[in-house]
Parts: sequence; structure tokens; C-alpha cells
Amino acid sequence: MDRFIPITSLKNEQLKKWKKLQSKKGRAAYQSLLIEGEHLISEALKAGVSFRNLIVDAANKEKAMQILSGLPVQVPIYELTPSLFASVAETDTPQGIAAVIEMPVWSTEELLQDQDQPATYLVLDSIQDPGNLGTIIRTAEAAGVKGLWLGKGTVDPFNSKVVRAAMGSLFRLPMLGMDLQQALPLLKESGVTIVGTSPRAGMYHFQYPFPARSAVLLGNEGRGVDPAFASFIDAEIQIPMPGRTESLNVSITSAVLLYERLRQQYPHM
Amino acid sequence: MDRFIPITSLKNEQLKKWKKLQSKKGRAAYQSLLIEGEHLISEALKAGVSFRNLIVDAANKEKAMQILSGLPVQVPIYELTPSLFASVAETDTPQGIAAVIEMPVWSTEELLQDQDQPATYLVLDSIQDPGNLGTIIRTAEAAGVKGLWLGKGTVDPFNSKVVRAAMGSLFRLPMLGMDLQQALPLLKESGVTIVGTSPRAGMYHFQYPFPARSAVLLGNEGRGVDPAFASFIDAEIQIPMPGRTESLNVSITSAVLLYERLRQQYPHM
Repeated sequence: MDRFIPITSLKNEQLKKWKKLQSKKGRAAYQSLLIEGEHLISEALKAGVSFRNLIVDAANKEKAMQILSGLPVQVPIYELTPSLFASVAETDTPQGIAAVIEMPVWSTEELLQDQDQPATYLVLDSIQDPGNLGTIIRTAEAAGVKGLWLGKGTVDPFNSKVVRAAMGSLFRLPMLGMDLQQALPLLKESGVTIVGTSPRAGMYHFQYPFPARSAVLLGNEGRGVDPAFASFIDAEIQIPMPGRTESLNVSITSAVLLYERLRQQYPHM
Repeated sequence: MDRFIPITSLKNEQLKKWKKLQSKKGRAAYQSLLIEGEHLISEALKAGVSFRNLIVDAANKEKAMQILSGLPVQVPIYELTPSLFASVAETDTPQGIAAVIEMPVWSTEELLQDQDQPATYLVLDSIQDPGNLGTIIRTAEAAGVKGLWLGKGTVDPFNSKVVRAAMGSLFRLPMLGMDLQQALPLLKESGVTIVGTSPRAGMYHFQYPFPARSAVLLGNEGRGVDPAFASFIDAEIQIPMPGRTESLNVSITSAVLLYERLRQQYPHM
């Protein structure tokens, strides 16, 4: 018996549903997203996310069977013609294998648990470039960030460009979309110090002893953090720039700050 | 007398020349590149690069006159219809003002001067993504890197995507394309220690005391540094990743290493 459900028409209802996952609205409605390529699928598998569908072209049927064998429950596999596959894919050179997975969902409690333990959080206000957000997610997870807070105006983390840039980290890093007017007080109540950046801070990031529970707050690529959040900031630091550059890319800023924070957590030589 | 030279035909010879600047071959042939938008033009002006042409649409004539007033020599300005302007521009939403500038050219001597002084270099082997290279250039200049060496297989630094991501840093950071089989011995002869990365280095980047004259060597996004250069590497370090991420984006790696190197150059608190 063939496990593969063929789809050969652009009018197929399942196909129409997958196409809706290309928009934020569609992803929210179905609480799911479409991920492309063997690498991302394997990362999602390892992270234990729930699979809803596998979608392949004829050349990838064997790969799909291998993937299925790693899944705890039966998942329908659809076989598409290359042109239909391309209509569902968002990459220029579709890889012939994709999956619809459940959107990872995290709770405030998960992000804030173990309040007596050291923790690093990252709080983002209106990051707009998907490549930046994806790279930030990948970097934050690598650097051991406990939770990511995404304020209003931040690009959807399940946008396909974010997903690609984040690699598998998107499935593992606890994250929550929340108005920062709510998130910042919550963090402070749980003993977290809010650390902002300013070109006039007067203290370099490596001169600042990060408290055991710290959150780094970073803002929009163009205008920085909304002044409405200024009153929540406990400390301001700056990254030195001996060159004549005016600013760093926000994903670079996140990396420099999170890795300095991590350095301070290691026993010094 | 109108200073603006109108171009109204797709067959105009000047226009054809500008279009050739969209390819690496064309840029090399004319030793020039086309930069778009007021911000980049103003950065190029400040950096003192040589301007060859200004190109505007009707809405930007006044801006062009202001820019001209900052230039030491007379530069021809061309006025294009919006559709012709769009044919020359490489951005999706052309800003209506562009300039053709001379390619910045640096010499080995400029990169290696003051050999008795501390210096940080960055050496790149086959970086392929233009966004990565641009971000690396912006970050390296910010962090005070003295010179950038671009090995074979690295994307052209004057590719328009690199130029955009590098912001103005491209006009200021001394850089040189050179086979690394030549560049690495040159660096070593000038007293520079070559620092590579390896996931099995056993020493974190912040545990490594960077020598006064150090070069960070980074490799291709997928396969890292070509093993052919391994014999030149004096020390290997690694960036800790407490998360389950396998690797960092190469621009992030450059930032973390260059900023740790810079931290070590500041008097410690």
C-alpha cells in the first residue's frame, strides 16, 4: 500500500491551506508553519516538535520514509509534482521536502521558572528584518539565553526567512510575543536587571558586571528602543567603536553583549 | 545653465556602462562601482573617495547640487527618467540618487605598516554570502581592525549587497584580495599570530590572550577554513555554545572574536 497521498491539482484544498502558511495570519489561524529542507526537518525532529504533514516531490519519497520512522505518530505524507511543490515552497530553489509542524508555544511560567537561579534573557523591541531576528535567535540559543521576549512590531518569528536564518534554534529557544509594557515589569518582579544600550552610556559592556539575572534590551534597527520603555532600564552600557562606524547591526550587538555576559559567567583564568 | 545632463534612452552609452557595474567583471573593468542612496553617498564623501558621476531622477536634483558642493572637483550629473533610473539601480525601491565612485584600492604596505605596533587583522577564506561579508566589514571597522584580507572564493566586496550591508565601512576599512597562501606568510613575517577557530580547540576565545599583533582567520559558511591553510594557524580557539546550536553565523563569530580581542586591549577594571 502506497503511503503517499498524491496531489496533482492547484485547486486541492490541502495545498491551498499550505499556501496560507506563507502569511502571518495563516500561520496564526492554523497554529502551524511550513519548514523546508532536510536539515530543518531533522532539527525539528530532534527538538520533538509535533509534525502534521510531510510534503515531498517524487525524488524525496525515500527520505520522507526515513523521517517518518523517527516520528512517534503516523503523519500523512503528500506527494506533489515539482511545480506544485514549488508553489508551496518559499525558497527560490525548493529542496523537494517540507513539513508542516505545530508552532512551538511557550508560557510565561516556562520563561520565568527557577527565579533563584542565574539567567540571561533577551528582549527585542520592533526588530524588523527577518534575517536579523533569525540570526539573533540562533546566537541567543547558542549563548545559553533562557528566554526571548518579542515586543510588538517585531517581525513574526515564524516568517520563513526568520526560520531559515535561525536554523534549528527556533525550535529550542523559549520565546514569547508580549507587549514590553507587560514583559519588562514581569522580568523585574522576578529579580531580573534590565540592561539597555546607549552611545552615551559612558560604560563599556565589558566594564559592566552583569547581575546574575540579566535581560538585554535591544531595539529597532533604525530608531533603537522606544523611549516609552526607558523607565524600565536599570543600567546602560555601550560597545566601544574605535573605528568611525556609527552603529553595529543589531544581531552583532546581541552577539557581543550576550557573549560578554557569558564570559563573565565562566570562572576567569 | 543647467548642470544636469539628461538621459532619456535605454541605448545611451553612459547608461550601458553603469549597468555593467552590476557585475564583478564590469566593476573590475572600470575600477569603479555604483552606490545608491543619500546615506552611502554621504559616507563616501566623508571618506574622501573619488566621485566620477552623479545620477539622479527629477526629484533629487537639489540633493545632487548639495552633494556637488562638497566635492573638490567638478563631477558630471546625469538626470534620468524614473524608469531609466530603476534600470541602473539594484535595489527594489530605488532612492532616486546614485553615484559612480572609484573603487577604493589599498596596498600591502598600507595594511602592514607600523609593524612595531599592536594590530588586529581579519582574514577571510571563501565567505560567500554578500550580507555576511558586508556585516563583517561593518563590524571589523567598528572594532578597530587594521586590515581585511579576502582570500580566493570570497564574494566581491563591491557587490551591491555587500556595499549596502557594510554601510560606509567599506570606504574606510583597508582591504585586499589576495591568495591566502601568500597573505598568511606575509602576515606571519610581519610578526602577526594567526588565530583560527575549531570546535575542538579546547580553549575558549576569552581564555586566550591575544598577542599584540593578531589575525583572526575565518572560513566559508559551510565548510570552514580550507585545510590547505591549516599549517599557518598558530593558535586555535572556540566560542562556547551552552545551547544545542552547532555553529554560529560567520559574521557573529567575527564579532565575538574581534570584540573579545578589543576587550583585552582595554585596561581591565
